[in-house]
Amino acid sequence: MSREEKEFVREITPRHQDYSQWYIDVILKTQLVDYSPVKGCMVIRPYGYGLWENMQQGLDRRLKATGHKNGYFPLFIPESLLQKEAEHVEGFAPEVAWVTHAGSEKLAERLVVRPTSETIICEMYSKWIQSWRDLPVLINQWCNVVRWEKVTRPFLRTSEFLWQEGHTAHRNEEEAEEETLKILEVYRDFVENDLAVPVLTGRKTESEKFAGALRTYSIEALMSDGKALQAGTSHNLGEHFARVFDITYLDSDGSLKYVWQTSWGVSTRLIGAIIMVHGDDRGLVLPPKVAPVQVILIPIAPKKVRETVMPRAAAIFAELTAAGLRAEMDDREEYSPGWKFNEWEMKGVPLRVEVGPRDLEAGQAVLARRDSGEKETVPLSGLVQRVQQLMNEIQADMLEKARRFREENTYYTDDFEEFKKIIEEKRGFIVSRWCGDPDCEQAVKEETKATIRCLPFDQNAGPGKCLRCNRESDRQAYFARAY
Amino acid sequence: MSREEKEFVREITPRHQDYSQWYIDVILKTQLVDYSPVKGCMVIRPYGYGLWENMQQGLDRRLKATGHKNGYFPLFIPESLLQKEAEHVEGFAPEVAWVTHAGSEKLAERLVVRPTSETIICEMYSKWIQSWRDLPVLINQWCNVVRWEKVTRPFLRTSEFLWQEGHTAHRNEEEAEEETLKILEVYRDFVENDLAVPVLTGRKTESEKFAGALRTYSIEALMSDGKALQAGTSHNLGEHFARVFDITYLDSDGSLKYVWQTSWGVSTRLIGAIIMVHGDDRGLVLPPKVAPVQVILIPIAPKKVRETVMPRAAAIFAELTAAGLRAEMDDREEYSPGWKFNEWEMKGVPLRVEVGPRDLEAGQAVLARRDSGEKETVPLSGLVQRVQQLMNEIQADMLEKARRFREENTYYTDDFEEFKKIIEEKRGFIVSRWCGDPDCEQAVKEETKATIRCLPFDQNAGPGKCLRCNRESDRQAYFARAY
Repeated sequence: MSREEKEFVREITPRHQDYSQWYIDVILKTQLVDYSPVKGCMVIRPYGYGLWENMQQGLDRRLKATGHKNGYFPLFIPESLLQKEAEHVEGFAPEVAWVTHAGSEKLAERLVVRPTSETIICEMYSKWIQSWRDLPVLINQWCNVVRWEKVTRPFLRTSEFLWQEGHTAHRNEEEAEEETLKILEVYRDFVENDLAVPVLTGRKTESEKFAGALRTYSIEALMSDGKALQAGTSHNLGEHFARVFDITYLDSDGSLKYVWQTSWGVSTRLIGAIIMVHGDDRGLVLPPKVAPVQVILIPIAPKKVRETVMPRAAAIFAELTAAGLRAEMDDREEYSPGWKFNEWEMKGVPLRVEVGPRDLEAGQAVLARRDSGEKETVPLSGLVQRVQQLMNEIQADMLEKARRFREENTYYTDDFEEFKKIIEEKRGFIVSRWCGDPDCEQAVKEETKATIRCLPFDQNAGPGKCLRCNRESDRQAYFARAY
Repeated sequence: MSREEKEFVREITPRHQDYSQWYIDVILKTQLVDYSPVKGCMVIRPYGYGLWENMQQGLDRRLKATGHKNGYFPLFIPESLLQKEAEHVEGFAPEVAWVTHAGSEKLAERLVVRPTSETIICEMYSKWIQSWRDLPVLINQWCNVVRWEKVTRPFLRTSEFLWQEGHTAHRNEEEAEEETLKILEVYRDFVENDLAVPVLTGRKTESEKFAGALRTYSIEALMSDGKALQAGTSHNLGEHFARVFDITYLDSDGSLKYVWQTSWGVSTRLIGAIIMVHGDDRGLVLPPKVAPVQVILIPIAPKKVRETVMPRAAAIFAELTAAGLRAEMDDREEYSPGWKFNEWEMKGVPLRVEVGPRDLEAGQAVLARRDSGEKETVPLSGLVQRVQQLMNEIQADMLEKARRFREENTYYTDDFEEFKKIIEEKRGFIVSRWCGDPDCEQAVKEETKATIRCLPFDQNAGPGKCLRCNRESDRQAYFARAY
């Protein structure tokens, strides 16, 4: 490692030394994000927003393919609407921002800046839905929401964040449950295949479910520090909101019924997952499918050969772009190739293409993978094809690597002492039997800071005893400390 | 016209009877939008949002092609930041929404819900910009903004609306002015070629410019009731904000300078322009480039031939979709073909494809254009190609028709009596000489409700006299009553 490289790397705190500081160093130095003058609110800089746009595209495509359409509902919710559903208001009221004045006038009724949009959307659905012919209603919106958080961290927990929230209405329980699980699968597919982040899926316990929901399902990912991150949730709202907002329809048999609803969301929090699952001590490692820059082309052109190298580099760049790759060329003269290598590695660009005078003479280029550090030389004639191939290989390898890490950090025990030791020394997911009693769940949380992330769908572990109370139980839960 | 058709059309108030009511009827019945429980805030329904998404794509592509990148800045702006630029705060303070509480706590400093983001973005730019190497900064954001309006109308003037706001920083006046005009041209190109709405371009007068700007330019369109609509603005902010927010850079010659800035935006207001430029007494007429549904396929399949017609209609539908057309098939059994024709006409779908048993036997389909009402029969073998051709023809014809309408409704006079008569009886654009004195501008406004929409770039009318004061002037202005 050259002196220059060492200095560069020193700017990022190593993960083993201080994981939180590593995270902050990485997101600030790569210009994904910046702090803003408003407490708890972040500025998403173009590099971060480019990532988010690619993520949006991947998920939006899947949501449209499953019949959903986008719409837009107001930012503000009148206080009286928020208060209609008792559990919902109890869950959100402590953390909402209140608009009390417009210009110099006091408003007749206070407005909440939406923390989520169930209530205002239900108000509209009660107007729009009359007959079974109007169902299902499958609407999603991409928007900003505000939840006033005491402790914030960019992407992971911020007072304002960006997300999508889907809100659907159905004829009956069966269709609502089918939708809830369909979306969970859309999320799993998106997060695993586009973000290369493997997830566990399952149902939330009563104490962890969404305020106002009948059942909540989630996808849960494991960060490289062994802590879990809830990466998306899908709720079957039952008839809870329909009863309060009077959303009824005339069924084909002539009877008046309440609709069954679902809601579901993922947010800019997923960017935090990408960073913490794939990043290393040199910075970001971005999956090709969503990387704002997939390929960075670096011409190695000292002054005396600049005129020969640059036009050929430009031609290669044009080829990469024409093939639909998100490529950039770093032809800045004021920085050395070594400095550029480090910077683009820090920024997590999946693949670097180097072309120098000798490479060009030999009709070849050097490729360097960000994820594995592997280098290879390819003939220029097959460059684009090889780069495209590598995009797929890197994407697959990143998922595989993350999956392996999760498997190596997933433990199975029903012994509480062992459980505590694992949580203290190793973290990771722990699969343990749980009797289903909220008191046991609460006790585990208090004693270990580990929570039940979700209850797996496949329950086939056979008889055993609850981790905490030793009562007989054949049901398991995924435990972890979580963000 | 059948009885059924008449009833359908009756649901929309004719334009000549009550233009405002026609507008409201159209936007509500086509489900572009709905009123919300929050005063002045609209719900954009999937059909309206689909239109907006296509518009966003068309403009976003152009902004990226000119080097701009998207980012995201906070929804909230601290009161102290908003107040830094005197003209700016004066312009916006009367119409902002104030957040005063979070949860149950009173905030130490009140927050404004952004009416526009110059101030918070300048605060960040002063941190990010150090050297001439950091320039230009070319950032755009797509977001919601709030301006508390007393009188609102969906899309045209709402308390919350969606828009894009670009904010750039440059080394000097020349580069800033170039950017300001480049964006004006991007807007013109987008609005004319994607929305088929012809626009006049020019500079705003001092009294009509953006609060805090040095110079404002705008694009102005003519609605079918003869009123003008400001469709987009581009501001050269000069050094105004840079001096207040201390945005300086070290230039290559070693001197410290203030940056020159621009900002520019278009909003969901453009949807109002599409409706009012192209719509007719039967409802919407949407330009193919942005129509959520470009082609509606209606199989004419009475029960006894349903089994023969439907599979062939499905095959045609698959062909249309495969060709990249945004097509839908209306195969609902509970509605008659006539009812469907009317509904999709009302929704403004550019082209209808009808296939009935006799058409299929003859190996053909019937095409009906929404804009002109023209019908033609095409062989199925050439259907997709003809449909694609028609998309371009309809797009071009719609622009041409709107341009003709504007030309027919543009008047030239320097005689104030004639001016008043035109404004009262015909409206439209009036091109008149103006001395440049704000008092004359104000007097014309008070006496006729017409304002100067913009000052044309090309000023070659030769000598003459100001419309209002008869002083010598060789400069002209576009006047109109405006939304």
